Amino acid sequence: MYVELDRESDLPLYLQISNQIRQRISAGDLPAGTKLPPERRMAAMLGVNRTTIVSAYRELAADGLVEGHVGRGTVVADPDSDATGAHGTFQIPWNQLFTSTTEVMNDPLLRDTTMISSRSDVISLATGIPSPELYPIELIRSLLDEALHSGGQTLLQHCPTEGYGPLRAALGRWMAVEERPIDPASVLIVAGSQQGLYLLARTLLDPGDLVVIESPTYLGALQVFRAAGARLLPIPIDASGMRVGLLEDLIARRRPKLIYTLPSFQNPSGGTMSFDRRRRLLELAERFRIPIIEDDPYSVLRYEGVPLPTLHALDQRGTVIYLSTLSKILFPGFRIGWIAGPQPVIKRLALMKQIVDLDTNPLAQWAVWALLDRGHLLEHVDELRSIYPYRRDLMLDALNRHCQGLLDWNRPLGGFYIWAHLRDGLRTRDLLPEAARFGVSVAPGESFHPDGEGESTLRLNFTLPAPEDIDEAVRRLAAAISSLRGSRGADDRQLQETATPIV
Amino acid sequence: MYVELDRESDLPLYLQISNQIRQRISAGDLPAGTKLPPERRMAAMLGVNRTTIVSAYRELAADGLVEGHVGRGTVVADPDSDATGAHGTFQIPWNQLFTSTTEVMNDPLLRDTTMISSRSDVISLATGIPSPELYPIELIRSLLDEALHSGGQTLLQHCPTEGYGPLRAALGRWMAVEERPIDPASVLIVAGSQQGLYLLARTLLDPGDLVVIESPTYLGALQVFRAAGARLLPIPIDASGMRVGLLEDLIARRRPKLIYTLPSFQNPSGGTMSFDRRRRLLELAERFRIPIIEDDPYSVLRYEGVPLPTLHALDQRGTVIYLSTLSKILFPGFRIGWIAGPQPVIKRLALMKQIVDLDTNPLAQWAVWALLDRGHLLEHVDELRSIYPYRRDLMLDALNRHCQGLLDWNRPLGGFYIWAHLRDGLRTRDLLPEAARFGVSVAPGESFHPDGEGESTLRLNFTLPAPEDIDEAVRRLAAAISSLRGSRGADDRQLQETATPIV
Repeated sequence: MYVELDRESDLPLYLQISNQIRQRISAGDLPAGTKLPPERRMAAMLGVNRTTIVSAYRELAADGLVEGHVGRGTVVADPDSDATGAHGTFQIPWNQLFTSTTEVMNDPLLRDTTMISSRSDVISLATGIPSPELYPIELIRSLLDEALHSGGQTLLQHCPTEGYGPLRAALGRWMAVEERPIDPASVLIVAGSQQGLYLLARTLLDPGDLVVIESPTYLGALQVFRAAGARLLPIPIDASGMRVGLLEDLIARRRPKLIYTLPSFQNPSGGTMSFDRRRRLLELAERFRIPIIEDDPYSVLRYEGVPLPTLHALDQRGTVIYLSTLSKILFPGFRIGWIAGPQPVIKRLALMKQIVDLDTNPLAQWAVWALLDRGHLLEHVDELRSIYPYRRDLMLDALNRHCQGLLDWNRPLGGFYIWAHLRDGLRTRDLLPEAARFGVSVAPGESFHPDGEGESTLRLNFTLPAPEDIDEAVRRLAAAISSLRGSRGADDRQLQETATPIV
Repeated sequence: MYVELDRESDLPLYLQISNQIRQRISAGDLPAGTKLPPERRMAAMLGVNRTTIVSAYRELAADGLVEGHVGRGTVVADPDSDATGAHGTFQIPWNQLFTSTTEVMNDPLLRDTTMISSRSDVISLATGIPSPELYPIELIRSLLDEALHSGGQTLLQHCPTEGYGPLRAALGRWMAVEERPIDPASVLIVAGSQQGLYLLARTLLDPGDLVVIESPTYLGALQVFRAAGARLLPIPIDASGMRVGLLEDLIARRRPKLIYTLPSFQNPSGGTMSFDRRRRLLELAERFRIPIIEDDPYSVLRYEGVPLPTLHALDQRGTVIYLSTLSKILFPGFRIGWIAGPQPVIKRLALMKQIVDLDTNPLAQWAVWALLDRGHLLEHVDELRSIYPYRRDLMLDALNRHCQGLLDWNRPLGGFYIWAHLRDGLRTRDLLPEAARFGVSVAPGESFHPDGEGESTLRLNFTLPAPEDIDEAVRRLAAAISSLRGSRGADDRQLQETATPIV
C-alpha cells in the first residue's frame, strides 16, 4: 500500500499515514471491505514503529472510515450503501462503469515492492534500470542542441506513425551486424518495448486465445497478455532456457496462437536459451505456423562466452517478430523501442499505433538515430560490457560472503539480473517487509510467474545500485533472511496474517 | 493509395509506381481482389499523365500480379490459393491471425488525402497542425540544455506512470485560471490527447457499449471508439454546437455509457457550444449519471467574443472527464496531453497506461512544466491569439474572392478550422483528385461523420499554410471545384467509377 512519508514535515507520521489512507478511501481507491495491511507488516514496510500505525488506524476508526474485526484485522467501513452518501447525491458510481481490462493489473506485491524501493533509506535491488551515472548525458545535450538548431520545425512536428525513416534504417543496420540486412519497411518504432508488446497483443490476440510463455517471464508481458484476455500456457525454464522438449506435445494438443520468449539473459532469470533449443523452437513454430515473439532487450549485453544468434537471425521464413528497446542499453526516458518482423504485421501494428498514440516523439527518435549513425551507441554498449560484469561479480562475491546457506543463486553471462531461491521453503512475500526493515528491496519472483508459483524466488539487479552499496545491500538481505528464519517458528500469527493478500 | 514519387530519380515514374504496388502486393497489403484506383483518378492524385498509370498497370499485369476486368477495372490477381505460393511453403497466413480491432482503421479517403498532402507541389489545407514557424524552438533548446545539465540522470530515467508531479500540479493551475483549483492527483499526463482518448475508451467501453458523439466530430475519436467495439449515437450540431435538445430522448431510450463532446472551436466544424447548451448538457448527464468526456484542445485559442466556461469548470459533481493537449498550442512533437477528472478514473487510467507504455518521456514533461511555470506558455498562447485571427481572415477574404457561389463556409471565433459545404450536391471525394491536380488538398468532411454523411463538407485549416500561400491555395481550390462542376455532366463514367471505394 502506497504511503509517502515526509520525515522533515511538522505533521506527525501517524497523521501523514491516516490522511493518505483517508484520501484513498474517499477517492474510491480502497472500497468498503478492503483489508488494510496488519499493523506490524505496515510498520515494517514504512520503517516506522508499530505504535505509529496503531495511532493512524485509530484516527481512521474515529472517523468511521475503518473498522476493526477480531480475526479479520482492520477493514474499510461500508459507507451509506445508496448513492446519497458522503460523495453527494449524483456522483457517478465509477466502479460500475470500468471495463475488466485493468483489473488484472493490481498486484499488491509489486505495489509494496515499489513503495519500499522508493524509500531513501532502502537500497533497491528490485528494478531493471541501467546505471544512471553511465548515461551519456553530455552527448545527448549536444545532440538535442544540434537537432533543434538544424531541424526544430520538423523534429517538433508529427512524424510518420511507423517512425522516423532514417532511424528505421539505422536499427535495421544495427541488427544486421549479427544477421542479414533488414528492410527499413520491416521496422516499426514504438514508445518503448512495453508499447511494442501491447500493440502485438492487441493486433494478434482475441480474448481466450492461448499464448505460450516461459515461466518465469517478464511481468509486463504477463500483464499485457492478461489484459488482452489471453490464456497463458507456461513452459518451465532450466539452465538452457525454455524446455522446448515440453512444447511439441502442448502445441499439438492446444494449438496456441503465439509463442513469447526472451531467449537471451532472460528477465527475470538471467538465463539463456541454448543454440540447439533455439533451432528446435524455430522448427516447431515453422512446422505448426505459430508466430514467435522474441523479446530481446539484453542480448548485446553479453559479458563472456560466445554470442548466440537471435531467433530472428535464424528465421528464414518470417515466423519471428523481434522486439527490442533502447531502455536497457541507453536509458529508459526517451521511450524508444522497435519491432522488426514481416511487413504485413508491421503494417497492422502501425494501424494500431495510430489509434493508440499517433506517433513517437521525433526529437528523441532523431537523437537515437544520431547515436547509432555516428557509432556512439556501439561505443556506449562496449563501455557497459566492460563495467557491468564487474558489478555482477561484486554482487556474486557479496552473496558468497553473506548468503551461504540462506540462498541459492545463478551466475548470468550477461544482462541485468541474478536469480535466487530462498532455502527451506521461505516465501519472498514474507521476506519483503523484513528486508524493508533492514533497508533493502528485491523483486519478488512470484510476480514473474503466471500461476502463483516461484514463491521462494527473487530477482536481484546489479546495474542500478551504486557499486559501493552492493555489498551492504546483500549484507542487509542476509540479515533479513536470518531474521525471517528466526521468527518463523516463534510467530505463527505472522504466517497467518501474510497468507491473506495485502492491499 | 500511397505511392511516393521521386521526380529526380533516373527510374521512370511508371516503374516507380509499379514497383511500389508490387511490393505492397507481395507484402500482403493489397490482397487478391483488391481494386486498384481507376487510371484517371490515380493519375490525378499523383499529378502524372494517365499514360504513366496505364504503363504501370501493364507492367503489373505482365507479371501476373493484376488483372483487368471490363466494368470492374484493375484488380489484384489471385495467387496460388494454397500456402505453397510465391511466399514459400511455411509462411504464416497473417491475415488469418489479426484481430478485428484494426480493421476499422482503413479509411481510403484519408489515406488518399495524406498522400496528396505530402506532395511538394501541393498546398495542404488538410492538416490540424500549428504554424511551425511559430514554434518556440530557441526556448526549447535552452530549456532542454538546462534540464540535462541539472537533472539528466533523473530526466532520462523512468518517471511515475501518472506523470511528472510538478507538471501535474502546473496543469492543474493552468486550468484553474478559468475555474476552481485542481488537485494534482486529479491530473494524468498522457502521450498526446490521442492516447488519452484511447485510455478512456479501453477503461470505460466494452464492445457494444453506446457512445453519444457529435456529428461531425474528431476522426481520431471515431477510430478509437470503433476500435473499442462501441456503437456510436450521433447527435447533429448547429451554430450553437451539439443539439442538446435531441439528447434527452436518446438517453432515456438508449442509456448510453458515455457522451463525447468538443464544445469549443470544434474539430472539424470550428463551432462552439452555447453557454445555455453547456448547462443543459451537464444537467442531463448528471441526472442520468452519464460521464461526459470533454475534449478541449482549442478553447484557449479564442480570437474574439467572451470566453465560455468549460464543462469541467461548470461541473460540481465529478461528471466531466476533461482532456486536452499541448499539440495545438505548442507543437505536437513532444507528445504531451493530459486528462483531469475524478480520482477513481485517473487511477484506473494510470493502470491502463502502465500496460500500454509504462510512462511518458520525462524530459519532455519537464520542459512543458518549465514553460508553464515560468509563464512562457501563456506568452506563447498570447502570440498565437494575435497571429491566427489574421490568418483566418486571410482565408475568409480569399474565400470571398474566389469561392462565391461554389462553397458555403462559416467564420469561426477561434481554433484552427473553417468548415465548408460544396454547393449543388458535389461530393468532396470527387473533388479530392481534381484538387490534387490543381495543387491543393483539403480534409474530406465525410471522414469526420460516423455514418457516411457529410459528403459535401470539407475542413480548411488556416494555421499550417504559410500566409503568403493562403490566397493561392483557395484560388486553386476554386479552380478545382469549377473544373469538377464542368466535368460533371460531361462524364458520367467518372461518377460511376468513384462510387466504389478506392483502395
